[in-house]
Amino acid sequence: MPDFRSFAPELCPEKDQIALTPFESHHLVTTNRAREDDTVVLFDGAGIECEAILKIANRRRAILTAARYRKVERSCLQITLAIALIKGKTFDTILRQTAELGVSCIQPLITERTQVQVKNSSAKREKWTQHLIEGCKQSGNPWLPNLTETAGLEDYLENANLESSVVASLEDNSTPWKDLSISKSTTLFIGPEGDFTRSEYDSLEKKGAQAVSLGPYVLKSETAVVAAISQLSQYLRLDNR
Amino acid sequence: MPDFRSFAPELCPEKDQIALTPFESHHLVTTNRAREDDTVVLFDGAGIECEAILKIANRRRAILTAARYRKVERSCLQITLAIALIKGKTFDTILRQTAELGVSCIQPLITERTQVQVKNSSAKREKWTQHLIEGCKQSGNPWLPNLTETAGLEDYLENANLESSVVASLEDNSTPWKDLSISKSTTLFIGPEGDFTRSEYDSLEKKGAQAVSLGPYVLKSETAVVAAISQLSQYLRLDNR
Repeated sequence: MPDFRSFAPELCPEKDQIALTPFESHHLVTTNRAREDDTVVLFDGAGIECEAILKIANRRRAILTAARYRKVERSCLQITLAIALIKGKTFDTILRQTAELGVSCIQPLITERTQVQVKNSSAKREKWTQHLIEGCKQSGNPWLPNLTETAGLEDYLENANLESSVVASLEDNSTPWKDLSISKSTTLFIGPEGDFTRSEYDSLEKKGAQAVSLGPYVLKSETAVVAAISQLSQYLRLDNR
Repeated sequence: MPDFRSFAPELCPEKDQIALTPFESHHLVTTNRAREDDTVVLFDGAGIECEAILKIANRRRAILTAARYRKVERSCLQITLAIALIKGKTFDTILRQTAELGVSCIQPLITERTQVQVKNSSAKREKWTQHLIEGCKQSGNPWLPNLTETAGLEDYLENANLESSVVASLEDNSTPWKDLSISKSTTLFIGPEGDFTRSEYDSLEKKGAQAVSLGPYVLKSETAVVAAISQLSQYLRLDNR
């Protein structure tokens, strides 16, 4: 049996019947070819999952009946990815990957060397959310990452309350993971292709962000994001043994 | 000064003058816009680097004079990535990323659920090598990963001499990194989009491959590769403290 998953943000355990949005109906019935009586796992992005049966395989309004609800606890690791915007489809891919990796919050940043124009931000936001949902669907992550408003780095730092934070750094003063002091709720800063400026590194340091090296070579942003999240998650898990 | 890097596989410290291939000349002069008297770092992919001055900025045959040679030691971590082929450009991206991450060998695999037809393998190989060189150039890695011939998984396992190996696994019996027994020279198996079959997992297990979990959710191959290499490298480095 294929593992069908659909996003249904308004799930609630009292509901016996669920109608999907046109987008989700199309994805389930046309793209994934689910048929009547197939089992589908619905998730609301906030930890509720529902095993449901597809009753009307309509391409614009699929109808399902709920069989079993369950609540999935939030992970004890809470990673916020504060990342400088990247041009083109790379940023979409990164969003999908962060959902696969179980990041809890994405903070898009504009930095001095960011070369992306942000126009029509609500359309952009909707598109970005779709990539996050896609990552959740593919990976089985029932928690949709929280996507916050794009902000300038300096503005963000001025207002942010950072419990613990690290910045992936190409500078010489970076510290190996084992020497960092980080908590289970950590913000991870990833710079733009041309890196943060010296003055941005200073601002990050003033807010307590610890510089960490991801390895001996210079990683592209798309590689750095997955490498950093993986290393941070692993470090926090190992630390807990 | 921009950080120009070019691949020159026939570097040797006796040579004062180096001519680049047409491909590398084009990349340096046309794409990256290097000009006469610019400093360029040449690397041979086997640990020799040469700081050189661009003397003739010819788009088909750039000529440089050597200023300083240096030898870069090979990392003590030797990771072989044994990976099921993936359709389309994703595999190209993965190759570039493995070079950024400093993998020492790539073993492309055909598995039961691999959905890629391998035709014209020498043209393919040349294209793949180009992506590895690109990753080395971007990241500053002076060691070009060794690309071995594509092989069937069972044939490969029959002949491979695996000092230590792990397989990224979605099965319930996977072990956290901290409980694995792995050496600095490790082979990492990554399955196809539909995962290894039960019988392939059995063959891997018979050869001593230890099943490891990359986290709570199901990662796409492109995410799994970077996550697994990053976690393995980090684990091997932490283990050495």
